[in-house]
Amino acid sequence: MTPGEHQPSSAGLLGAGVIGSGWAARLTLAGVDVRLYDPAPEALETTHAQIERARRAWRRLTTAPLPPEGTLALVGSVEEAVEGAELIQESAPEREPLKRALLAQASRAAPPDAIIATSTSGLLPTRLSADMTGPERLVVGHPFNPVYLLPLVEVCAGSRTAPDTVERAQAIYRAVGMRPLVVRTEIDGFIADRLLEALWREALWLVADDVATVEEIDDAIRFGAGLRWAAMGTFLTYRLAGGRAGMRHFMAQFGPALELPWTRLTDVPELDEQLIEKIVAQSDAQAQGRSIDELIEIRDDCLVAVLVGLKAAGFGAGEEVQRSERRLLDLASARAPVYRDGWLVLHEAVVVPEWIDYNGHMTEFRYLQVLADATDAVLRHVGIDADYIAQRGSYFTAETHLRHLAEGHVGDGLYVASQLLGHDPKRLHLFHEARRTADGTVIATGEHLLLHVDPSTHRVAPAPDDVLRAIDGIADRQRGLARPESAGRRIG
Amino acid sequence: MTPGEHQPSSAGLLGAGVIGSGWAARLTLAGVDVRLYDPAPEALETTHAQIERARRAWRRLTTAPLPPEGTLALVGSVEEAVEGAELIQESAPEREPLKRALLAQASRAAPPDAIIATSTSGLLPTRLSADMTGPERLVVGHPFNPVYLLPLVEVCAGSRTAPDTVERAQAIYRAVGMRPLVVRTEIDGFIADRLLEALWREALWLVADDVATVEEIDDAIRFGAGLRWAAMGTFLTYRLAGGRAGMRHFMAQFGPALELPWTRLTDVPELDEQLIEKIVAQSDAQAQGRSIDELIEIRDDCLVAVLVGLKAAGFGAGEEVQRSERRLLDLASARAPVYRDGWLVLHEAVVVPEWIDYNGHMTEFRYLQVLADATDAVLRHVGIDADYIAQRGSYFTAETHLRHLAEGHVGDGLYVASQLLGHDPKRLHLFHEARRTADGTVIATGEHLLLHVDPSTHRVAPAPDDVLRAIDGIADRQRGLARPESAGRRIG
Repeated sequence: MTPGEHQPSSAGLLGAGVIGSGWAARLTLAGVDVRLYDPAPEALETTHAQIERARRAWRRLTTAPLPPEGTLALVGSVEEAVEGAELIQESAPEREPLKRALLAQASRAAPPDAIIATSTSGLLPTRLSADMTGPERLVVGHPFNPVYLLPLVEVCAGSRTAPDTVERAQAIYRAVGMRPLVVRTEIDGFIADRLLEALWREALWLVADDVATVEEIDDAIRFGAGLRWAAMGTFLTYRLAGGRAGMRHFMAQFGPALELPWTRLTDVPELDEQLIEKIVAQSDAQAQGRSIDELIEIRDDCLVAVLVGLKAAGFGAGEEVQRSERRLLDLASARAPVYRDGWLVLHEAVVVPEWIDYNGHMTEFRYLQVLADATDAVLRHVGIDADYIAQRGSYFTAETHLRHLAEGHVGDGLYVASQLLGHDPKRLHLFHEARRTADGTVIATGEHLLLHVDPSTHRVAPAPDDVLRAIDGIADRQRGLARPESAGRRIG
Repeated sequence: MTPGEHQPSSAGLLGAGVIGSGWAARLTLAGVDVRLYDPAPEALETTHAQIERARRAWRRLTTAPLPPEGTLALVGSVEEAVEGAELIQESAPEREPLKRALLAQASRAAPPDAIIATSTSGLLPTRLSADMTGPERLVVGHPFNPVYLLPLVEVCAGSRTAPDTVERAQAIYRAVGMRPLVVRTEIDGFIADRLLEALWREALWLVADDVATVEEIDDAIRFGAGLRWAAMGTFLTYRLAGGRAGMRHFMAQFGPALELPWTRLTDVPELDEQLIEKIVAQSDAQAQGRSIDELIEIRDDCLVAVLVGLKAAGFGAGEEVQRSERRLLDLASARAPVYRDGWLVLHEAVVVPEWIDYNGHMTEFRYLQVLADATDAVLRHVGIDADYIAQRGSYFTAETHLRHLAEGHVGDGLYVASQLLGHDPKRLHLFHEARRTADGTVIATGEHLLLHVDPSTHRVAPAPDDVLRAIDGIADRQRGLARPESAGRRIG
């Protein structure tokens, strides 16, 4: 454990709705033993479903091995759930009298040094603790759905909460992968839900006034500002919109819009010099000395990462990236193939930061990614497009021999030069060199044996004549080309 | 071009601020010739900087080859910019009299069939077109910063706009990779900026009232709801929060919060049966028949994709994922190594959707990713951790021989069994089998030759004794193990 993290030995959960079962999933996956109380008959089923979703998500979030899972026990009373627990997390429905009674009951059976946290979205902890024994143990720990994936947890003390409780709650949340945000003022809705509510209330007006449908409203977010919010929030984003002149320029440029009827929220704060100065100073602190150009680069890296992620998921803005990609591939297929000194050059790439590993250079599987993309370009060139693959077959790679000859670094432009080593109706034997664009240095070679397969059985089957003729065309162009020295070699 | 897309031959841009230069970047990268008018002395420099950022971003967004770039010319007048242009895009500062005069001037010199679009964030097109010749050509085309990356563009007609203008503007925006959202009601702030303004105004209150700093407000978004907004927006997210009972249940559960003082926006719409019914019906339509379970799976896939992307960028919520990963690796290192039938088993993985290619199975470089992760686990096992790599050296892979023996499909559990084939002070020769957890089928093998390198020179150098002793330990455990038949083979 890093300083500031503390793995709890066990947790008692009260409530197994969407939020409570999400806590059960996050905690058991982090190796914490959980006792859960919820009188609803579907409580266990809901919780098992959440745990299964959490497993699926975390396996993809990291290739690091997960710890042995904590145990989950459904118990018959509040007292059994909280007995001996280091963390008690209440996630009952958002009704003050209900939560107040439940927390009071839990407080009487809980260990004297337990953390008693409530998942409330915005009720005030001082009021919720009114009937508790030992109210110094109560703290708000407000998570966000899905609890097992989103890092944020708002931590807010009531007037009777001990400072130590706030510290210890944060240490526990950090140890299970969360990001505590201390809400320093006890205010209805805390910070996050006030922002969510403002947006939500404006959205409800747009629907009520028939300006837009719920789908149009969601699209207005997820194809635009939502992508920025995921990485940077609102103030850092606006700092960039001011360009190099920064936050003060942005406020001067967009402040006047506060006087326009651009939302139903018209009771706006006066944008006087004092408020502007406060925002500018806080924004400077947040930027941690990073220039606008540096922040723009970070923003773009994050947006690309988010868009590439959504492309793989095939959803939201990722659909638009997929559509652009199809259009670009169509346009590229329409251009003539390029031969350089007899080698076929159909693929280029630039080494990007996410390809770099702990050794400070391009990680090995990214070399294969570049070479495999070149193989795909060769296949498209001989007529293997989406229609072909759907109806007539495909080439599968059976064997690959890679040699790493030089390191790839961020920003290196690369192109792949390809040579056909041999082919028959069922087999295609390719050789690639990944070369630096700047000086032609070969950073890796790949020798690849591909087999043509039938689209339905996935068994090896001869390629049709039109494809074989196109491959013959490459062979004709490369007849005089010397065979690469390393082709056919084995690892010695 | 797909139906509904139309690549414009040329574009005339008025204004080269953050938005105007962003348009120049998106359009030239899509192959459109651009003429740009902006009297500011830094206009050309700003625009070139945006184009360079756009190139960098798009190279990473897709490996598909980009088309030949369009040309960029800075011209000396509005008339020269718009002459002969198919698309005219005005991006002057957000002041109505200025935009109105500029659009009138442009309208007199523009081709009679040009699209004259304004980038206004929320001014009304009917008013902006007041002094234009041919106002039927004017349409709002409101993009979002950075214009070259975010797909959203709000399209809104004024009272004199021809329906054909709205259609043609959409076709042009689609052809350059954007997602047009038609705003059907001419309303101040359109849809997106009303939502942004509501959140922004609430954020300003939080700062003005000293409840939170700008950084805390941004953190409240980017570690929580911002990650959901990127994929799903607000209504679809809330549909899921209702659980299987869906949107009506959510409205019943969270509707009462509208009466709480959870934002400064207190003039809220009445949540009567009619409004609830409307929202429920629109939400059903948006879900397109997908069940809550299906939507939850999509949401989680998107959140994972966004988080994994941010992990690679090392920013925002990605920092939290990196922190969790370090903790998990530390915990795993502390556990004893596992031998099964003499093979060393240190790495497991599950095949996820983003590993699948157009052939419907795991794409070739992901096999190498799994095997390379197993190599990393072996290296950690012999003491090559972050400190070692920073100070004492590392192993670089020099050569790899892969054999693909069976297809990997989504959900397949895999583990990697490793055998040490040989070693000396400078070399490490490993053999991996990636096996399906369910039945032990070997889906791929990898033979890898690694070289130990000096941390400063990156030249081959002997590994130190402690590492060699740890490797000897594996050799001792595997002394009786048969050498794999395919080891040392070459591609035949």
